[in-house]
Order: sequence, then structure tokens, then C-alpha cells
Amino acid sequence: MLTPQEALELVIGTALSLPPCAVALEQADGLAAAEDVVSPGDCPSFARAMMDGFAVRLADAGATVRLAGQLPAGAIWDGELVAGRCVEILTGAACPPGTDAVVPKEQADRGDRGVAVPCSIKPGQNIAPPGSDCRRGQRVVAAGETLTGMAVAALASFGLQSVRVTPRPSLAIIATGGELASPGQPLRLGQIHDSNGPMLRAMARQQGVSKVRVWQAADRLDAITAALDEASELDIVVLSGGVSVGAYDLVPEALARHGTETVFHGVKQKPGKPLLFARKERRLFFGLPGNPLACHLGFHRYVAAAARKMSGRPAWPQPFQGQLTAAIESKGGRTHFLPGRAEPAADPPAGWRVEVLGGASSADIFRGCRANCYVELPPAARTCQAGDICSFTWLLPGPWSP
Amino acid sequence: MLTPQEALELVIGTALSLPPCAVALEQADGLAAAEDVVSPGDCPSFARAMMDGFAVRLADAGATVRLAGQLPAGAIWDGELVAGRCVEILTGAACPPGTDAVVPKEQADRGDRGVAVPCSIKPGQNIAPPGSDCRRGQRVVAAGETLTGMAVAALASFGLQSVRVTPRPSLAIIATGGELASPGQPLRLGQIHDSNGPMLRAMARQQGVSKVRVWQAADRLDAITAALDEASELDIVVLSGGVSVGAYDLVPEALARHGTETVFHGVKQKPGKPLLFARKERRLFFGLPGNPLACHLGFHRYVAAAARKMSGRPAWPQPFQGQLTAAIESKGGRTHFLPGRAEPAADPPAGWRVEVLGGASSADIFRGCRANCYVELPPAARTCQAGDICSFTWLLPGPWSP
Repeated sequence: MLTPQEALELVIGTALSLPPCAVALEQADGLAAAEDVVSPGDCPSFARAMMDGFAVRLADAGATVRLAGQLPAGAIWDGELVAGRCVEILTGAACPPGTDAVVPKEQADRGDRGVAVPCSIKPGQNIAPPGSDCRRGQRVVAAGETLTGMAVAALASFGLQSVRVTPRPSLAIIATGGELASPGQPLRLGQIHDSNGPMLRAMARQQGVSKVRVWQAADRLDAITAALDEASELDIVVLSGGVSVGAYDLVPEALARHGTETVFHGVKQKPGKPLLFARKERRLFFGLPGNPLACHLGFHRYVAAAARKMSGRPAWPQPFQGQLTAAIESKGGRTHFLPGRAEPAADPPAGWRVEVLGGASSADIFRGCRANCYVELPPAARTCQAGDICSFTWLLPGPWSP
Repeated sequence: MLTPQEALELVIGTALSLPPCAVALEQADGLAAAEDVVSPGDCPSFARAMMDGFAVRLADAGATVRLAGQLPAGAIWDGELVAGRCVEILTGAACPPGTDAVVPKEQADRGDRGVAVPCSIKPGQNIAPPGSDCRRGQRVVAAGETLTGMAVAALASFGLQSVRVTPRPSLAIIATGGELASPGQPLRLGQIHDSNGPMLRAMARQQGVSKVRVWQAADRLDAITAALDEASELDIVVLSGGVSVGAYDLVPEALARHGTETVFHGVKQKPGKPLLFARKERRLFFGLPGNPLACHLGFHRYVAAAARKMSGRPAWPQPFQGQLTAAIESKGGRTHFLPGRAEPAADPPAGWRVEVLGGASSADIFRGCRANCYVELPPAARTCQAGDICSFTWLLPGPWSP
């Protein structure tokens, strides 16, 4: 059986970046640029006043010159600035041709006879020349980089209205199980409300997918294959339940009938050993166990990594280290993943404190509601003490993710 | 003039949590619960088989018993399990009344004469009794906690379809400036494409707001007040530009005419000294300088904190410490905020390396496109060397945020 490391390698190796497409700039933040973005021209495109003041000629240093008018940002000055004249100019305005410097208004005495230009003006003072912010052809975003708010601003200042990105995958969730009642329906004996569908939907939204749809399917082959057919437009299909080896574990057969190729079935991990991963052309299929914690871990560790890879982002989770707040025992045998809560350690922030929230069973999602990470315990049995260092990965993408 | 610390205290002290409301569970992830959520009943509500196997009576230990039928998850068993009989049961099914234990199928020999029950069965073996996952009345989410995927699962398993949360604020952006051309419009001399509107929209989306609308207003009092009137349904109004003291800096007067009360105008920081903060009843107004970097910092440090407070989340930014990758010089005088990029330090992850991306001017957004944080340099002038420790805050919310 595969180790969790080997299984994740297969998932990330199988997932392919989605084909690039253009999106409107106002929906581009957080997406990965599909190609380099270079400046189509000099920024600014004109000599820009950097202060409120007076546009003057160098030859008039020390003289008093006549005020020829006022030039707010966005306005145009007809003609040239000639010797013996100055123009009151506002921050952001284009300096009239002939301008050698902008004198800040608090350095220029303005009287009845005109404006007294200081002796000590320097050429180009308080003027941003064309291209001083960004030269034509300068690369501001490299292919693969995430579009930040500032990158959106840069592209907008170029006059761009769309940008080529690697889109995010769409995701189908098929919750299987004969015991599942629909939301809002009263429960008969033996029934439960589906929690995996809503959980997976929430996790998919928080990871960032372009679209998510949820189906509930009974434990019948025709119901599961019908849901698979309906989901055939979506990039990733996540099934919960029915993936083990019992008489009602129909997901492997439904996937086979759907024409998928199994990449692996079974991972040496706890929870979630029966995890199934399959593909059909570029589309990926995850059969997650129906136990809620196993389903949760399966999405966190494998489905989210595939979604990152398909989105053109780095797929491997970034491991962190933190100090356990309490002792925990690991029986060993399989790699054990436990929901936890990591918080910055005391002032000054010098690491992480990690509280393990694992419940008694892999059906217990109630003690883990505050979890923001998964602690990974290696397969060797051992008892960890409070203060011991553990390795963990965050449940949500970090702000440092490229 | 206020320090950045005093200014942020005023913003956070002025912002009020929005009134709680109910949202559908499928849109609740990431929002702060407005009240405690407790379990309305025992989970499971019935004695649940934890394995595929046979439901047996303790009295039949060591005997061979007749198979009375099969019980998949979600099905109901009519009547009681009587002595001398067993029922094949599947994981998740409700044990028939009278069941003392579930024997895993690999531990029970099934022959022609029936099923051989092992001698060593224990009462309750492989049965999750009612309430063993979660007792009626147990609190699974406390007021103020963020609803995670697992919390959504817990609430769904209770049969809940909505939850009371503190909603996220809606946000209006009013970009002012006579030099702004609309997106797609060709530029006349002296014009620029608005970059602050698209940038603020992207930052608002990434912080999580319920709605964002963008206006462009010319440098005329009537244009700005008209935009303020149109934005009067939105919780936070962010204006860019026109907030300094020049002849065309009309935002302070437009806000006064709109009936807002100024909380402060001016912060001892670089960039963004002319920052204006005002309020009108529960609504907040930010006048950010038009320089793109000043505008960016103003949103990051002040508007985002107000949005967090209004959303019922902790508002103060979490400071981190990292090692500078290169020397930087601070002229001092004001607290200096520089865009930077922080990455986990080398293996094993033991801190952060921070590259400062600050441009030459506060109009330079091009060198900062990769920024994921702001480095804060205190007002005392000093030269920082590569390897020195600096304080920084992340541009995006961290996965550890409650």
C-alpha cells in the first residue's frame, strides 16, 4: 500500500494545469498569470508633476516670473512654457513643454508682481520623467505568479481590461450512502443528515474553485453512475462514501463503468485508508471514505493539492513546525493525521503552538470545528509530550503562497 | 498628528460589528458565528455499527447462530434481535434492538449452518452508542468563532440549513481625479488609467466583503457628493485621491457636506500621511491618498482592520518577524511601511525571510506586484542590514485567523 507521500506524489504528478484563458481584470485577483505581463508603454507616459507648485524654467532661477495660468491633473496646457513665465501646476498634471523643474508652492513666494523663483532649483526637480515608474517592455508579472491587488493596479494602469490566467478547476461532489437524508428532511431511524456534501462544498469554496455542484446518490450503481454522468463537465469529481470493500461499496465499480483508470486505491494513513484516486483524460476522480474525518483529510491533503496544481499554483503543501500544547499518543502502523489548531506563540512571535483536537473516532467532526491545521504523526508508534515539536500543514492557503 | 498605532486604535474603536443575520449553511464558511451553536440532539441518534460485520447477542458467544438477514446503512430492522440469531450489518447502520455487539466479518466464520460467533466478544464492541460523537446540548461552535468546513459539517449533521452569523460589510470605492480615464478609453496627454479603483476592488474581494461597487468621480464637489449619495447603502466608503490640502482636494469638504464627522485627518506615516477617517452613524469613510502605494497601504492597514471588526473577527493585525534579505535605509521622521515579500526560511521552517520591494516613489506599484506583506520601519532613522530582524504584517488573512 502507498505511503501518504507516494500517494500525494501520484496526485500531483497526474493533475495537469488547466488551459489558460482570459478573465476580466476585476475577477483576476488571486489567479495565477498564464504568461508574463510587460508594460506596453512608459509609465508615466508624460513628465508628471510630483508636487503642487509651479512649473518653471531653469533660466528663471532667482527671478520673479509672471503666472501664466493653472494646470490641474488631467488638463492640457496649450503651447510651451516660455522664459519669464510660470504655470501653477497640481500633483499628477503633465508638465508643459519647456518645464525644467517644479518648485513646491511653499518654496515660492507669490506676490502681486508674480512668483519669486528660488535660486537653488535643480533640473528635473519634482518631475517624474516618462518611464520613471515603469519602462516600456518592463516585466511586472511573471507567468505563474499570483495576481495581487497591486498587480491588478499595474495592469489597470496599462489600460488592460483582461488578463490571461490559469483558471481554477470546477468541482463536483457526489455524496453516496443509503443512510443520507436530504437537508431539512426529518430523520427516520438509522438515517443521518449528509454532512460530507456541505463540508466538501465549504472546503472547495475556501480553497478557491470556479464552481461547485453537489449531488446525493443512493447506494445503487445506477444512481452513482447517473451522478457521474451529470458531473461530466466538471474538472474534479469528489465522491464520499462507498469506497471500501463491502457489498454496498459501489464507487470503485461505478468509476470503472464510467471509464476511469484507477491510479491508486488505498493509502497507509489514518484516517482514510481506502482512498481511491482515478482519472479519465484530464479529469480527476477522488473516492473519499464516508467517515467525515477521513473525508475531510482526503480533501485537505489530496483534492486541494490537485486543485492547486490545476490552477497553475505550487501544489505541494508547505510543512510548518510547532510545539504541542499537550501530550498525544500515536499507536503507529500508519501515518496519523490529526486536526489541530495552531496559533502564533507568545510575544515576540517565534513559532507556533499546536493544540490537537482529534476526536475519539473518525466520525467525530464535533471536537474539530476550530481546527485550522492537520498535525502529521509518522508511522512509528510513540508518545509525544507537551512541548514536543510536531509537523503540521494549514487547512487554508497561507498568505505567503505564491 | 496621530501615530499609525493611534490611528488604527481609533479606526478599530469606531468600527462596530454588523447586526447578526441568518445565512444559508452553504454560504456560511469563513463567517463568524453570531451565537453559540449547540447540538439539538445526540449524535448518533441511534446505536451505530462501526464496522461491516454481524450484530449478535452476548449470550451467543461461542455458538453458531442463524443469519436472520442483512441490514445496510439507512435501512430499518423490524423487531428485535433474538437469541440464536444474528444480522449481517453494514457500517453506519442502526443496530437492531437487542444487539450487544458487532463482530467484524473477518472474525466470524460464516458456514452453511450459520455464523460462528467468537467466544471473546465484549458488550458494545464496534457499536457507537447514541450521543457518543456529540451529546445533546454540547457546544460545537462558540459565538465569534469562524465557521470552518468541519463546523459546517457539524451543523449539517444537526439538520440545520442556516446559521446566525455576523455578516461581512459591503464596500463602496470612489476613485476621484480629473486625470482619470475610464478603462478601455484611449489616453489624452496628461491622463492616466485609474488603477486605484481596480486595486481597491481586488483587495476588498480578497479580504472578504459581501459586495463591492466602484465609482469614478471627477474633481468636482458635486460629482463626489453625488457618488457619496449613491453609495449610501454601503457599510464602508473608500475614496481615493483629493484628500490633501490643494485647491482640487475636495474629499474633506464633500464628506463634510455629506454629514460625516471627521475622526482624524493625517497620520505620521509614509506613505499616506493625508489619510482621512470619518463616520456617519455606523458607516465608515476612508479618504485615501491618490498615490497608488499610499492608497494600497491605507486599505491594508486601516480599511481591512475596520472590515474585520465589522465582520465580528479580531481586528488587530498579527505582527510577524522576519530576516531582511538585503539592507534598507530609513530616513526616519515617520513610520515607514514598505511592500515586501515574506517566504518561509530554509528547511526546517524556522521563520521568515523578507525581501523589501519598495519602489522609488509612492506612485510606483510596479516593483511591488509580488508583495505579500508590509514591512514596518519605526520612525527613528536607521540603516537595516541584510539579516536584521524586521516586523511585518501579511497582506492577506492568515489561515490561523480565528
